[in-house]
Amino acid sequence: RYLHFCKLPGRVMGIRLLRFTSVVIIVLLLVAGALTALLPNIKDDKMLNLKREPKLQSQSALDSFTLIMQTYNRTDLLLKLLNHYQAIPHLHKVIVVWNNIGEKIPEEMWNSLGPHPVPVVFKVQTVNRMRNRLQNFPELETKAVLMMDDDTLVSAHDLAFAFSVWQQFPEHIVGFVPRKHISTPSGVYSYGSFELQNPGFGNGDQYSMVLIGAAFFHSGYLEDFQRQPEAVFALIDETQNCDDIAMNFLVAKHTGKSSGVFVKPVDIRNLEKDTNSGYSGMWHRAEHLLQRSYCVNKLVNIYDGMPLKYSNIMISQFGFPNYANHKNKM
Amino acid sequence: RYLHFCKLPGRVMGIRLLRFTSVVIIVLLLVAGALTALLPNIKDDKMLNLKREPKLQSQSALDSFTLIMQTYNRTDLLLKLLNHYQAIPHLHKVIVVWNNIGEKIPEEMWNSLGPHPVPVVFKVQTVNRMRNRLQNFPELETKAVLMMDDDTLVSAHDLAFAFSVWQQFPEHIVGFVPRKHISTPSGVYSYGSFELQNPGFGNGDQYSMVLIGAAFFHSGYLEDFQRQPEAVFALIDETQNCDDIAMNFLVAKHTGKSSGVFVKPVDIRNLEKDTNSGYSGMWHRAEHLLQRSYCVNKLVNIYDGMPLKYSNIMISQFGFPNYANHKNKM
Repeated sequence: RYLHFCKLPGRVMGIRLLRFTSVVIIVLLLVAGALTALLPNIKDDKMLNLKREPKLQSQSALDSFTLIMQTYNRTDLLLKLLNHYQAIPHLHKVIVVWNNIGEKIPEEMWNSLGPHPVPVVFKVQTVNRMRNRLQNFPELETKAVLMMDDDTLVSAHDLAFAFSVWQQFPEHIVGFVPRKHISTPSGVYSYGSFELQNPGFGNGDQYSMVLIGAAFFHSGYLEDFQRQPEAVFALIDETQNCDDIAMNFLVAKHTGKSSGVFVKPVDIRNLEKDTNSGYSGMWHRAEHLLQRSYCVNKLVNIYDGMPLKYSNIMISQFGFPNYANHKNKM
Repeated sequence: RYLHFCKLPGRVMGIRLLRFTSVVIIVLLLVAGALTALLPNIKDDKMLNLKREPKLQSQSALDSFTLIMQTYNRTDLLLKLLNHYQAIPHLHKVIVVWNNIGEKIPEEMWNSLGPHPVPVVFKVQTVNRMRNRLQNFPELETKAVLMMDDDTLVSAHDLAFAFSVWQQFPEHIVGFVPRKHISTPSGVYSYGSFELQNPGFGNGDQYSMVLIGAAFFHSGYLEDFQRQPEAVFALIDETQNCDDIAMNFLVAKHTGKSSGVFVKPVDIRNLEKDTNSGYSGMWHRAEHLLQRSYCVNKLVNIYDGMPLKYSNIMISQFGFPNYANHKNKM
């Protein structure tokens, strides 16, 4: 056959080849056209189906974060805040921890007001526990968690900057609310803020905790939290408080360093006065601060030592909001 | 002879041994006495002999720093600043790089006004070069260097805090004066400060250099600097400028990260107006900033690429000077 082929005149072979090539091209174009017609309409399906979330590439897992917001008796604030937070840059998903036991989640209303920028998952709880927000949620795909109280509004600028700071300090709790413990000669610890004396390391103040109600931290710590001694869970349940202090103990013990990195917020607001529910948050209870001092001492017993370390590093964003917020007399 | 020794009676040998031993002991005592008498009087010599400094324990090598201050034609400012800087906490030693060629160092006056808190070494130079301060001085015993221009006054509080920050970021240049480069569409770089446009990474500004005229950095970088290409030295000598830009290139290339960490100073002052000499510093030359842009581009050629990276982290001291400089509307 090979010999036969070589004997054909060049001109005849050329025409047959041309015809064959044309047929192939036309068939390919038809198939392409059919495939295009069959592609689903992206716009209709994208936002309504909360269950079909895009699988997170490993790159995105580091470049985006998951907002976890626990809510109790302040659904009006929750929805107001969700409108703000759902549009924060680098947000991957929102997990709402629904502590309104027996009450239906506002799923219909949420869907009817779609599409939304990111998926929002409502996790219905069976018991109203403070530590419900510290579960290792299966929906969590990112390395970073942003945890926010349901009455706290932090500006997008602050969050974008704090997220970039977390990426440089991923083993720390990077957030906007610093607190400290102090020792007393009796050996009993006390919890507080700037109103307490400085811990005595040179001049200025120090902080030893960053509260998780407005902070970024590594999702791995949620996994670690599940493995804490039962006494820690009992303490949090008994006080309905101190889950954030416990997290700082966990992180400090894990890193051997100061647990938190404080980022000074430009615009952080507490919206609790704006709620229709009249519910104003746990920190208004008379015993709130005394409880937290109590928790510090209990946790020192449970962990057999004080792992919290002091820091006086305060981070701000260079050139924002004022383009020369670093000018000096030189 | 050996055999002969063995044949001596035991008693005779014992007495001879005893006599011999006594003589040896007496001679040793006399020698010891003579040596003690010859030991120099410590008090008189301690401060006057600048050459004999105490050997630094390895602990101190990390907990203290060496101030390197280059000086030209502003001895009045130098001496004013030395009174301030010699008492900074954690200072181990001062090295004054004497660029006043042919002029005597003020050693007599310095000694007559002793004792001083730390040793001060005057390094007499043979040529007035900007890069003289970047030598790997044998007197340098600490891991940290504080480099200061001879017209810059930074408060002790700022320095103590910045040193503690350097200890947390030892591979970076931790200092008080941030600068940046920007790219232009032509590919030519420009050097400047807040007056230039933001490099375009989100909102706010960025810096890519921290100037070494008021900064802490690891003494190992002085060693590294000696190994830079000859073209770098030629550039610095040609411009009598840009040694600090070259150091930032070196550090950025070494770490693969942003070279500097900016600490916002509370109290930094330029004293150049206070000098009697009338000499007002290199940065007043008309071509100073243009030279620095020129240097950035030359260094990119020499290093075959732009190693500088941007940062927008601005560090301040928590609770200082105001005990609650972090309070917010919450």
